[in-house]
Amino acid sequence: MTQQLTKARITAVDTHDIRFPTSRWGWGSDAMNPDPDYSAAYVTIRTDAPDGLEGHGLCFTIGRGNEVAVTAIDALRPHLAGTELDETPAGLDARYRALAGDSQLRWLGPEKGVTHMALGAVVNALWDLYAKRQGKPLWKLLADLTPEELVAVADLRYLADALPPDEALLILRRAEPGRAEREARLRAEGYPAYASSPGWLGNSDAHVASAARRAVADGFTQIKLKVGADLEDDIRRCRIAREVVGPGVRIALDANQRWELGEAVEWTRALAGFDPYWIEEPTSPDEILGLAAIRRAVAPVKVAAGEHTANRVVFKQLLQAQALDVVQLDACRVGGIPELLSILLLAADFGVPVCPHAGGVGLCELVRHLAAFDYVAVSGRLADRTVEYVDHLHEHFTDPAVIARGRYTAPSVPGFSSTLRPESLRAYAYPDGAIWRTA
Amino acid sequence: MTQQLTKARITAVDTHDIRFPTSRWGWGSDAMNPDPDYSAAYVTIRTDAPDGLEGHGLCFTIGRGNEVAVTAIDALRPHLAGTELDETPAGLDARYRALAGDSQLRWLGPEKGVTHMALGAVVNALWDLYAKRQGKPLWKLLADLTPEELVAVADLRYLADALPPDEALLILRRAEPGRAEREARLRAEGYPAYASSPGWLGNSDAHVASAARRAVADGFTQIKLKVGADLEDDIRRCRIAREVVGPGVRIALDANQRWELGEAVEWTRALAGFDPYWIEEPTSPDEILGLAAIRRAVAPVKVAAGEHTANRVVFKQLLQAQALDVVQLDACRVGGIPELLSILLLAADFGVPVCPHAGGVGLCELVRHLAAFDYVAVSGRLADRTVEYVDHLHEHFTDPAVIARGRYTAPSVPGFSSTLRPESLRAYAYPDGAIWRTA
Repeated sequence: MTQQLTKARITAVDTHDIRFPTSRWGWGSDAMNPDPDYSAAYVTIRTDAPDGLEGHGLCFTIGRGNEVAVTAIDALRPHLAGTELDETPAGLDARYRALAGDSQLRWLGPEKGVTHMALGAVVNALWDLYAKRQGKPLWKLLADLTPEELVAVADLRYLADALPPDEALLILRRAEPGRAEREARLRAEGYPAYASSPGWLGNSDAHVASAARRAVADGFTQIKLKVGADLEDDIRRCRIAREVVGPGVRIALDANQRWELGEAVEWTRALAGFDPYWIEEPTSPDEILGLAAIRRAVAPVKVAAGEHTANRVVFKQLLQAQALDVVQLDACRVGGIPELLSILLLAADFGVPVCPHAGGVGLCELVRHLAAFDYVAVSGRLADRTVEYVDHLHEHFTDPAVIARGRYTAPSVPGFSSTLRPESLRAYAYPDGAIWRTA
Repeated sequence: MTQQLTKARITAVDTHDIRFPTSRWGWGSDAMNPDPDYSAAYVTIRTDAPDGLEGHGLCFTIGRGNEVAVTAIDALRPHLAGTELDETPAGLDARYRALAGDSQLRWLGPEKGVTHMALGAVVNALWDLYAKRQGKPLWKLLADLTPEELVAVADLRYLADALPPDEALLILRRAEPGRAEREARLRAEGYPAYASSPGWLGNSDAHVASAARRAVADGFTQIKLKVGADLEDDIRRCRIAREVVGPGVRIALDANQRWELGEAVEWTRALAGFDPYWIEEPTSPDEILGLAAIRRAVAPVKVAAGEHTANRVVFKQLLQAQALDVVQLDACRVGGIPELLSILLLAADFGVPVCPHAGGVGLCELVRHLAAFDYVAVSGRLADRTVEYVDHLHEHFTDPAVIARGRYTAPSVPGFSSTLRPESLRAYAYPDGAIWRTA
């Protein structure tokens, strides 16, 4: 399935500190994050191949500390610079194991926090480059791999008790017969999305109402509201939103880790009359036992989490503990494609839908590939699956997310859609880009 | 209880990348970490007070990536530089909440990985300075605080379901009557230690035997062996060690996260004939459910973990899930004194002994304070408690750990014992110190 390519050697691994001053514009405010400046620790991998293609990857951060993520990417450079690309799934797997297995760097996590996000950025950049050189959008490249190739690439370490390789293989083989049909449907109809923009905590009541109305008019069948700062405010905003969207549109709630366990249960129950579809991140992202207890207590309201889940080992336990109704995969929090594959496989194994986290910088661009691949080759399902959509910062990407009638259009440009426009790289460079010099 | 001090303003927050080339000397090798270069991302906080006292703190790392930890400490500087010290427990608590609550930096964890270690380094440096200005070793300063002051300082966020403030207060009040008596005993007899040096994976059989023999002669009643790379080697080394130390000395085993769950159970059982006291870090440090399963399966061998446990929320769940027989607190992995207090309180609440992780750079120096404080004012117990001891790098500290007859002597110098000698700071600076220029 893999096209033979001319040899290529990595000639440069360049990093960039890119920040968008979104706090000036009031975007993205929630109960824990009042003033995010959506940012990216961005990496560009160049080679000596005559095609001139580059691999691009990023850590998404919300401002201060973006330079720490840049330094963490820089720490991986010695594993890359000057080495030859092995552009096969096995070659990418060997590269991943070398990067993830650096024992000195591993100490800094292990497999969590900034260094793990940096690993993800670099590994995703290598897959972006691979997909570009193969001339395929990443989701299609992955969907064209055999079940055996995918299992070999997925990071299944520490998962043997839940997902041994033969079980992973079985999941992928079961989904094999329908791949072509689902691919055709995906290209024709797109992938369901939901709208988060109506619900920022900083939005006025009037803004919530108008944005919710517009989302429904635009074809979205789910919106999301931020909650958790003040119960009376939450009740009022839920009432406004429910009145505007009517009973047929789902309203998800997002507490952004604000609550203790008991508080999460009480607060969610206090909003239950507005028929919320899920409560997202009710407490610490490190809670497994506690999230399971919340889930039991707030049913039928579903529990969603995952954008801050550190790695596949935590996802495994969240699923084993029946703590999650919805797996909110994040493309830039874990160790890149190999670990993202293992999380998709875990979710499929436990029969829990994946509804990726997006927004931020580039997350919409990236996760649509993962959702599309999941539909075509892993879970084979669309029911109760929906990808977050936030309408901002797309114009900075060369292959921006496209939404039509409340659905993501399947990407068609080769790569992982993680490439920022050169003029955006220059203007939003921190602290010397034009946008910051004029601040 | 708190002495009134002249006002002081922070004039400088200096960071240092300090690395010891321990891999050249073959120290510290285990199944996951074949060649660590024990390192510290080190911070010095200076003020305008005429006493000239400085606060010192560190992240312990094992080499590459130490610069990432330095950058993470640098990211906290804007919260400190130019501000006035509020040298009361309440003032330190307010400072901690401001540092830990920076919403943009929090995104990089939250509460895990390099940024959390950096928080710990800075917060510990502030407590070091506070203890120096109060003229007390840190353990004594903490042991002189009232239960109310300690509860106000401990980080109890996300712990309400297991350790509400009134329960924490009860633990400390229960321990209050015996404080003076235990303090006297601690000063007279020291705190039990165990010896890890005999067991590095790089040690020859002869070295294992001679070092184990010396440890027993030196008065240690527990040694530790690294395992997990090769079962035949482990069997042979366990046999050698058991023959040398006899039946009365405890042998702990440490797998350094090497195994899948099933493998951990089988391997531990294969070594059970040598009567190991505990198996340490049998699998991923993110395992809660899995560690509980291992513990049930390998009993009566105990399960120990914690040196890589990301934060108090994970410790809470490890205890709730009955996954741990031994809490291996690490002074430099979590968010500093406030979170270390909460972990000590959790362990006491669940009746699980704390046996801190040490070795590395400065860990022996720091954790002896925490163990001493736990004994005097929290758990009030010594039974089955022992602090790791590794005999290296102490000479670089101004107040080095002292061992007598297999026990840590109670520290007597004001501060947290985290101060490196100026000449060591110069010689081991990376990459420009003398030791690295001559490499």
